[in-house]
Amino acid sequence: MELLKQRIRSDGKVLPGGILKVDSFLNHQIDPMLLREMAQEFGRLFADAGVNKVLTIEASGIAMAVMAGLEFGCPVVFAKKSKTRNISDELFSVEVPSFTHGNVNTVVVSKEYLHPEDRVLIVDDFLATGAALVGLKALVEQAGGRVVGAGIAVEKAFQGGGDKLREDGLRVESLARVASMDDEGGIVFCDD
Amino acid sequence: MELLKQRIRSDGKVLPGGILKVDSFLNHQIDPMLLREMAQEFGRLFADAGVNKVLTIEASGIAMAVMAGLEFGCPVVFAKKSKTRNISDELFSVEVPSFTHGNVNTVVVSKEYLHPEDRVLIVDDFLATGAALVGLKALVEQAGGRVVGAGIAVEKAFQGGGDKLREDGLRVESLARVASMDDEGGIVFCDD
Repeated sequence: MELLKQRIRSDGKVLPGGILKVDSFLNHQIDPMLLREMAQEFGRLFADAGVNKVLTIEASGIAMAVMAGLEFGCPVVFAKKSKTRNISDELFSVEVPSFTHGNVNTVVVSKEYLHPEDRVLIVDDFLATGAALVGLKALVEQAGGRVVGAGIAVEKAFQGGGDKLREDGLRVESLARVASMDDEGGIVFCDD
Repeated sequence: MELLKQRIRSDGKVLPGGILKVDSFLNHQIDPMLLREMAQEFGRLFADAGVNKVLTIEASGIAMAVMAGLEFGCPVVFAKKSKTRNISDELFSVEVPSFTHGNVNTVVVSKEYLHPEDRVLIVDDFLATGAALVGLKALVEQAGGRVVGAGIAVEKAFQGGGDKLREDGLRVESLARVASMDDEGGIVFCDD
């Protein structure tokens, strides 16, 4: 999506260690008009997928997910990072390793909000190793539902998670795929 | 706002200890169409306020705030709960006591995203004691900006935070004001 790539080029910041900061328009500060355009693009890409639920993970995925839910006219569920490992019967739960923070989060969704009839679009701001996506997909499958695809803002293609998931048969649509970044702030997209 | 009150009556759950759960449409699961209607109501209520930024706090305020930002055509900033008390020069920060969790959170916003020219609408899902609102207002004032009002989904009026803030001169608009709740699940609104 050209609009997002332009915005990443103009306002994104490359930090040492392969970190791409998009704090000024995707997280921390959010541009709702950009998010609406992105949601409309997901609407076009997944028009035939029968999406009836959007799933994301707190906190930074929520803004994109709610705009996507508006586009598809369906509920949005956000998985929560649990503070405790004592999970009740009322929750679906999965362990998601965080490569950024070097720990493991227990991620939960109430059984009230995922069902066998769900056709779920997973929405998230970043896709790197794919650990969060794998975890969210597992939650949907615990409920007997189906993940029809993933709509991602920024895929760090050089970390390989997206292609691995595609090989496993998941439809992953990323609006901007970053092929490489260098320490001088240069960003190369996969389709440049 | 009648639509929100109806939804709280039909889908809200009153738990012991004065807890009102709106997990099925405002947090955890979100109804984006309801949120858009709520944002449009904030648009009408604050039409004359010159809002040029929306501020909320992660995580459950984000969905409402981004829809409000779309309505006002302005950026949305969400304050973050910091894991550390070591705050850098690059952040505005404030301590916010949580009555639900019995602890104190350090809440931060990057200095890049709040400015003296900002006319800020604070948006949040709940208003009870008002501690979060007081904290968010302090962050805006650290930046030299102005809070033009607060747009709240559900005010627990019986906890007094909203009226205290109104007495202090803040314009607080709550779409549903709960006067009382009982352990049988009954909810009385202030304007019933």
